[in-house]
Amino acid sequence: MVAALAADAASKSDATGFRSVDPNNLVLIDTKYGEVAVELAPQFAPKHIERLRALVRAHFYDGKSFYRVVDGFVAQGGAGEGTASTGGTKHDELTKKWPPLKAEFDAPIGGAFTPLGSPDLFAPEVGHIDGFPVARDRKDGRMWLIHCPGTFAFARDNGPDTATTEFYIVIGAAPRRLDRDLTAFGRVISGMQYLQKLQRGDPDVDNGVIQKTTKPDPILRMRIAADVPESERPSFAVLRTDTPAFEKVKEERRHPTSPFYFRKPPPVLDVCLVPVKVRKVK
Amino acid sequence: MVAALAADAASKSDATGFRSVDPNNLVLIDTKYGEVAVELAPQFAPKHIERLRALVRAHFYDGKSFYRVVDGFVAQGGAGEGTASTGGTKHDELTKKWPPLKAEFDAPIGGAFTPLGSPDLFAPEVGHIDGFPVARDRKDGRMWLIHCPGTFAFARDNGPDTATTEFYIVIGAAPRRLDRDLTAFGRVISGMQYLQKLQRGDPDVDNGVIQKTTKPDPILRMRIAADVPESERPSFAVLRTDTPAFEKVKEERRHPTSPFYFRKPPPVLDVCLVPVKVRKVK
Repeated sequence: MVAALAADAASKSDATGFRSVDPNNLVLIDTKYGEVAVELAPQFAPKHIERLRALVRAHFYDGKSFYRVVDGFVAQGGAGEGTASTGGTKHDELTKKWPPLKAEFDAPIGGAFTPLGSPDLFAPEVGHIDGFPVARDRKDGRMWLIHCPGTFAFARDNGPDTATTEFYIVIGAAPRRLDRDLTAFGRVISGMQYLQKLQRGDPDVDNGVIQKTTKPDPILRMRIAADVPESERPSFAVLRTDTPAFEKVKEERRHPTSPFYFRKPPPVLDVCLVPVKVRKVK
Repeated sequence: MVAALAADAASKSDATGFRSVDPNNLVLIDTKYGEVAVELAPQFAPKHIERLRALVRAHFYDGKSFYRVVDGFVAQGGAGEGTASTGGTKHDELTKKWPPLKAEFDAPIGGAFTPLGSPDLFAPEVGHIDGFPVARDRKDGRMWLIHCPGTFAFARDNGPDTATTEFYIVIGAAPRRLDRDLTAFGRVISGMQYLQKLQRGDPDVDNGVIQKTTKPDPILRMRIAADVPESERPSFAVLRTDTPAFEKVKEERRHPTSPFYFRKPPPVLDVCLVPVKVRKVK
């Protein structure tokens, strides 16, 4: 399946080295500040993505909220009360309909991986697959999505196999300590600035869950782009990361040539700080 | 002077290990979303801080704007057009009044430095002084403030000695490649979430300067807290970083004991990801 995905991506990339985002893997989140677009990476967590699509199509998220928002860390959305990650009385009812998922913290190595070419403190090897920041361990043959700004993942309770319906998106500096400890399977390709406007919670109170006195911002609607009529469906293209064009982007970050850099910075590259260009096609 | 500062800090810290922020080193920035508080670190850039205080007291910034805001990177404020960092016709007039400053990219090593205790890819040694993230190179005896989320610095043109009036604040992942290449001398201790609401520019157009069709958000007012009547002056305390309490914070990040961590993360600590607690006293 991974090979098929890679071939598909290649066939859809145009001469400029951009790859069209498959509308089946594009989640649109309407907030009151604007539309957020998340691209899913099915090879990393197929069962979670199946669940997410089912939840979106059941309108589970519509009208729910971003109820836990910690500045510089994450925005968490979903039902809030009664879920595995927050507990509460509605827990049983919810998990009957949406049973806990088996963790998909990592996946078998596969896909068109391009090494970053710089060392990393958290993983034996890091790089990109289709624009997603990926870490790998060849010793056990596993790979996983890295927690960078914009990473989309499912929240869980303390047990590894407890994710049900709640998602979070990284809105601050990369919390790499969460890598391979939660199931991450997407990244925001447009609209980060709208997530940054979300009402915050107090990180010292209930882990940043927004308390009753303040109203959390709603999730107005969530859709899979493939379900949106083609005439109004937004469409994106992402720079391919297995190309000489992307090597140039990395090289310019690693060894900036701009005269602005009076002192040349150490030739270090942070996998979360390499911009992977996204174009809104329509 | 550094010794005096350290002694001063110690004398003002209470039994809980918090240090009061000196109102002379506290800059208050009023945005339409809320108040942002920045603590200055005079030992890192005394001339820039002298300039900043003079600009604030001349009401230079009041009514100006955050005219360059790049999501995930920086919010830049000041006059905008006509400054060293943006060029334009008003440049000469402005620099007559506020001549370019000599770079203060680094300073002599000093102060109560506490090593982080984890390796860093960008500097020989990193740690904290009074809650500020600091890098040092003992070979040349210099230290400098690290670009973390919330770091406050002066913008400049290509030449090193060209900063005049414009400032920026890091609002995204740590752009460490800027370390020691710009004059950084403060950090946001309160109100990051208001900066996150600022109107963004397009990073692909004029470096993210907000174009004429969109209105940048104003800097309503900037004040040095010491100039605010005591009855209405906000006051903050910052956790001391040269204490066992802070060592505990770092240790819990490095080796999390929470059962949530099904897989123990690598014992790596990013200097920008250690939270340094701030209390609003009033």
